[in-house]
Amino acid sequence: MRERLRNAALELYSDRGFERTTTAEVASRAGVTERTYFRHFPDKREVIFDGEAALQASFAGAVAEAPDLAPMRLLRYAFTSLAVRVEGDRDLQARQHRVIAAAPELQERAATKAAHLAQVVADALTARGSPAPVASLAAGCGTAALNRARREWLVGSPQSFAALVGDAFDDLELLFQASSAAVLPPHGRDV
Amino acid sequence: MRERLRNAALELYSDRGFERTTTAEVASRAGVTERTYFRHFPDKREVIFDGEAALQASFAGAVAEAPDLAPMRLLRYAFTSLAVRVEGDRDLQARQHRVIAAAPELQERAATKAAHLAQVVADALTARGSPAPVASLAAGCGTAALNRARREWLVGSPQSFAALVGDAFDDLELLFQASSAAVLPPHGRDV
Repeated sequence: MRERLRNAALELYSDRGFERTTTAEVASRAGVTERTYFRHFPDKREVIFDGEAALQASFAGAVAEAPDLAPMRLLRYAFTSLAVRVEGDRDLQARQHRVIAAAPELQERAATKAAHLAQVVADALTARGSPAPVASLAAGCGTAALNRARREWLVGSPQSFAALVGDAFDDLELLFQASSAAVLPPHGRDV
Repeated sequence: MRERLRNAALELYSDRGFERTTTAEVASRAGVTERTYFRHFPDKREVIFDGEAALQASFAGAVAEAPDLAPMRLLRYAFTSLAVRVEGDRDLQARQHRVIAAAPELQERAATKAAHLAQVVADALTARGSPAPVASLAAGCGTAALNRARREWLVGSPQSFAALVGDAFDDLELLFQASSAAVLPPHGRDV
């Protein structure tokens, strides 16, 4: 039922736009009443993010189960293993991504979910023993890498999501190798 | 006028809560009509974020004017110089911070502003020659450091904002030194 509602919302929001679609229309397209809609989702936006809570729980689980590594390596391991698991969901996620990109109200909700994911990851690192101030930085950098990889994946990169995650973490390392070099290169902007 | 409206909103949202305050009450407390309120702010939330657009422009300007350094050093320089400039605004910003923390709707708007700031910083780095995929990572890590420092500053750290920004960037470097060590420490979680 939730999936039917989500698919109906994706279709209508893609075709007519989020602003011009009502929850009654989404319900009707899914063959249910508006009341049923509201039993599953609290508002017009949340239907697009169905599965997000489960996804965030997967991230926490992946961080909890990763081997005992320094924080950035641990996140790279956890995010790569999750990327492998969701590789098959690209088409659906790409549709969601396009619908969100077209509606400022959905972008606002997406920004909130992204902030929440960073917090979930930070908490999972803290639970493994990282001091909270370090965990929040590691989570911020790690989710920046994850989000870059995800955007590239969803707009049609020929690489797998897992490979894009690896590339993003490699770029993070380069960024900080350049930064901590004892002597700065004369043209830092080329680094 | 905008400042009067913002102060009225801060008072009412603190005392009664965001949910239980109307824009008419904010206008009335500031001694103007609701129509005047809506000439200045599009909704009930935006009044709390007055100055945010100017702040984001300051960030872009600070990145544009920083010396020619590798991206993370450049951001450290830019954010530290901005922190010095806003040091005197702590009490006002701490009040805003508390009001936002108490209202999920304001947190949602704050998450959107934070995502926008990361984008503004990434664009400013790209304008200086960083490739966009690297700029987005640098901006993600740099704003994670900035946000951690800002939270610590606003909840009453005895250190200056600029010193807290420096500490956060130091911690970022340590995080990546630990990460790129050829041999991982046996207890990575202690790093």
